[in-house]
Amino acid sequence: MSERHDAVEVIVAKRDGAELTDSQIDWVIDAYTRGEVADEQMSSLAMAILLNGMNRREIARWTDAMIASGERMDFSSLSRPTADKHSTGGVGDKITLPLAPLVAACGVAVPQLSGRGLGHTGGTLDKLEAIPGWRADLSNKEVFAQLEDVGAVICAAGDELAPADKKLYALRDVTGTVEAIPLIASSIMSKKIAEGTGALVLDVKVGTGAFMKDVDQARELAETMVALGTDAGVHTVALLTDMSTPLGRTAGNGLEVAESVEVLAGGGPADVVELTVALAQEMLAGAGVTDVDPAEVLASGRAMDTWKQMIRAQAGDPEADLPTARHTHDVPAPASGVLTRLDAMAVGMAAWRLGAGRARKEDPVQAGAGVVWHARPGDQVTEGQPLFTLHTDDEKRFERALASLEGGFDIGGGDDYSPTPLVIDRVSA
Amino acid sequence: MSERHDAVEVIVAKRDGAELTDSQIDWVIDAYTRGEVADEQMSSLAMAILLNGMNRREIARWTDAMIASGERMDFSSLSRPTADKHSTGGVGDKITLPLAPLVAACGVAVPQLSGRGLGHTGGTLDKLEAIPGWRADLSNKEVFAQLEDVGAVICAAGDELAPADKKLYALRDVTGTVEAIPLIASSIMSKKIAEGTGALVLDVKVGTGAFMKDVDQARELAETMVALGTDAGVHTVALLTDMSTPLGRTAGNGLEVAESVEVLAGGGPADVVELTVALAQEMLAGAGVTDVDPAEVLASGRAMDTWKQMIRAQAGDPEADLPTARHTHDVPAPASGVLTRLDAMAVGMAAWRLGAGRARKEDPVQAGAGVVWHARPGDQVTEGQPLFTLHTDDEKRFERALASLEGGFDIGGGDDYSPTPLVIDRVSA
Repeated sequence: MSERHDAVEVIVAKRDGAELTDSQIDWVIDAYTRGEVADEQMSSLAMAILLNGMNRREIARWTDAMIASGERMDFSSLSRPTADKHSTGGVGDKITLPLAPLVAACGVAVPQLSGRGLGHTGGTLDKLEAIPGWRADLSNKEVFAQLEDVGAVICAAGDELAPADKKLYALRDVTGTVEAIPLIASSIMSKKIAEGTGALVLDVKVGTGAFMKDVDQARELAETMVALGTDAGVHTVALLTDMSTPLGRTAGNGLEVAESVEVLAGGGPADVVELTVALAQEMLAGAGVTDVDPAEVLASGRAMDTWKQMIRAQAGDPEADLPTARHTHDVPAPASGVLTRLDAMAVGMAAWRLGAGRARKEDPVQAGAGVVWHARPGDQVTEGQPLFTLHTDDEKRFERALASLEGGFDIGGGDDYSPTPLVIDRVSA
Repeated sequence: MSERHDAVEVIVAKRDGAELTDSQIDWVIDAYTRGEVADEQMSSLAMAILLNGMNRREIARWTDAMIASGERMDFSSLSRPTADKHSTGGVGDKITLPLAPLVAACGVAVPQLSGRGLGHTGGTLDKLEAIPGWRADLSNKEVFAQLEDVGAVICAAGDELAPADKKLYALRDVTGTVEAIPLIASSIMSKKIAEGTGALVLDVKVGTGAFMKDVDQARELAETMVALGTDAGVHTVALLTDMSTPLGRTAGNGLEVAESVEVLAGGGPADVVELTVALAQEMLAGAGVTDVDPAEVLASGRAMDTWKQMIRAQAGDPEADLPTARHTHDVPAPASGVLTRLDAMAVGMAAWRLGAGRARKEDPVQAGAGVVWHARPGDQVTEGQPLFTLHTDDEKRFERALASLEGGFDIGGGDDYSPTPLVIDRVSA
C-alpha cells in the first residue's frame, strides 16, 4: 500500500521544514502502529511537527492514515440520522450527560464513544461510572441495538478505532508533545470520523481552565477540525465557548451526574442549560432535523425519559442514590460583595486534588469527590457564608485542594463585574 | 546532588524557547544515564534543542553533566605534557596516523582515545586494525604506560568516559537529531575533556565531504567547542580545513595506513604533509613546546621510529604486509585536460560502498577496500589512463561504487582550475 521509507528520512524532512509527502505519512503511521518505527523516533517527529507545523493537506493525510490503522464504524443502516459532540475538555463540563439523551429525544441518534479523563478535567465515563451498576464497555452489536432502541449511547471507544492514535496519544503525553494543533486536531478527528457519526459538533473551550488559553489558538484548532470533518463527509461545526469560569456549580463525578439530572428535570444552572441547548441545536441542524426545539423537549421531560432508558440499557440504576464523599469541608467567603471572578483552573485543580480526577491513566477516581461552588460570577456573597464545599474520601487531601483555590476568585463591588458570553464564536465550513 | 525534576517539564521548557536551568540539565542527563528518563523523552528534548538551540551557558553545563556521568582521566602525573587532536571527520582523513607519533617524537604525549567510524568517513581505529595483530582495546594502566614509554597511544575510548554521551549519540543517530551544534559540540568536548588532555586541537572540516557543508556553521561549531575547552581548562584551538576535496590520494583502511607510512617516511601527498605539520604545530604550541619544528622531525625519520614503537606496543607488526582487496577495477579518465574538481562526498561514498566503511555500528569493514585516485585537482590527466582504482573483496560492489563517482569530478582547461587553501581559518579563545 505505501512505499518503503525510513524513519530518519521522515523526521529530517519535517525537522528541516519540508512538507511530508502522502507516502511518507502513510508509511510512518503504519510502521509506528506495527512497531517498526520506534517510540523514540515518533516522539522526535512529533516534536518537529509541534515546532514546524503541518499544512492542511498533511493534517488531512495524517488523520486518514490514523483512521486506516483500525476499523471504521458505519451507522448508515440505522433508521435515524446520527450526530455526536466532542468537547476539548473543561472544568465542570458535564454537558454530554444531558445533551446525548436530549438530542436522542429529538429524533437523532447519538453514538458518543468516549475516552477517560486525565488531569484537571474529568472524563465523561468517570462521571457516569458514579451511577451504581452502569458499565462503559459495550460490544459493537450492543452499541447498534441501543442506538436503534434508545437513540443514545455513551460508552468506551473500543481499541479497534484508530489504534495509531491511541499509541501516539500515550507517547505525546510523556514527551511534551501534546500541545501541537495538527496532532490535537488529527487525534480528535480520526476517532470521530472512524466512529462513523453523520454530523459532529465540536465544543472548543477557551480560557484558563481549558487546554487552549487564547481565542486565536482555539479558532485555529476549530477551523482545522471543521475542515478535516468536512473533507471526510461529516457535517462539522464548532462552537468556541468560555472556560475561564467553570461550568455550572459542581466539578466531580457523582456531583456532576446529580447536576445533569437537575437539568434533565427542567432545572439546573442557567449556563449548563444554555450550552446544552445550543449544542443540541447544532447537532440537530447538522443531522438535518430543523423542526424540533430542544429547549421545549428538555422542559417537557422527554429527555429525562431517554436518560433513564440510556442508563438502564447499560445496567445502571437511574433512581439509585449517588455515592457521596466521606468528608466535606466548607470554605467561607472572606468578604461580602459580588463574586467577580471564579477561575476554572483553580476549581479544576482543587477537584482533581480531592480525588475526582487522575494523574496517570491507571489511577482510580473517587466517585463522590469534588467541589461545589455556591456562587457564580455576578452573584452576591456574604462574608462567613460558605463559598465552596469540598468533598473527598480522604481528609488529608483538603489542604492541597485549599491551596489550589487560593487566588482563584475575587470578590468586589458590582461595578467590578462584567459578564462574558458563554458562546464566543461559531466556526463552520 | 541535583534537584528533582520531571522529563516533561524539561522538554516543555526547551520546546517553548526557555533556557534550561543548571539544575534541569544536571537532572536530565543523570536521569537519562540511569534510565529514569526514557529514550522517547530524550529524543523529543534533543529535537527541541536542535530547533530552539542552547546558549553558551546551557551548552557548557550540558557538557559538564555528560562528563560527570562517568570517569575522568588525569595525565598530570606523566613526565611530559599532553595534547590531542579531534577531527569532525572527512574523506581520506588519515592525519591522526602520522600526527600522533610525530607530536610524540617532538616531546608531547598524545592520548588519542577514538571511536569507530559510521557512514562515508572512516574511523581511525578501523584504519589501524588493517595492521596485522594491532589491537584497539587497552586498559587505563596500559594507556599510561604506553604514554610514558612511547609517547603516543591511539586506542578505543572506554565505556567509562562520558557514558551519557555514548547513550545519547546512539539515540541521536536514529532520531534525526545528529545535526545540532550544541549537541555535536558537547558530545565531542565531553569526551575530550574527560579524556584529560592538556591541550586540544580541533580539525573542523568544511565542504561537500564533511558534516558541515558551510563555513559559517563550521565556524560556529569551532567557536562553541573552543569556548567549552577553554572554560574547562584545556588549551583549545580549532582549524577550519577544506573537505570539498578528499585528503591525499587514498580512502580506505589499509590504503590509508600505507599512505600514512609514506608520509612518515618523508614522502606522501603534499596536502597530508601540510595538514599533519600544521596540526602538530598547534598541538605543540598548546602544550607549551615551541622550540621544535615538526616538519624537521618528520623529515628526520624520528616520527617513523615512534610510529613503529606505537604499533608494536599494541601488538601490531609495522613491517608486515598490509591486507589487499581481492579485486581491483580501474576507472579511466574520460577526457584529457586538467582535473578541476574531485568531490569528497563522491569519493567517500564510493569507498564506503566498496566495503571500507559501515552502515551500522555492528557491521564489519574490509581492510583492503577503498578508492585510490591517481590525480588531484590541478593535475593533468590523459584520456583512457586510470583516474581511479577501486578495491574490494566483493566484485558486486563495483557497480554502486561507480555510480557514486558519476558527476564527482570535472576535467577542463587549466583556466578552469583555481586552487583553494587547505586551512581556511583558525579559531582560538
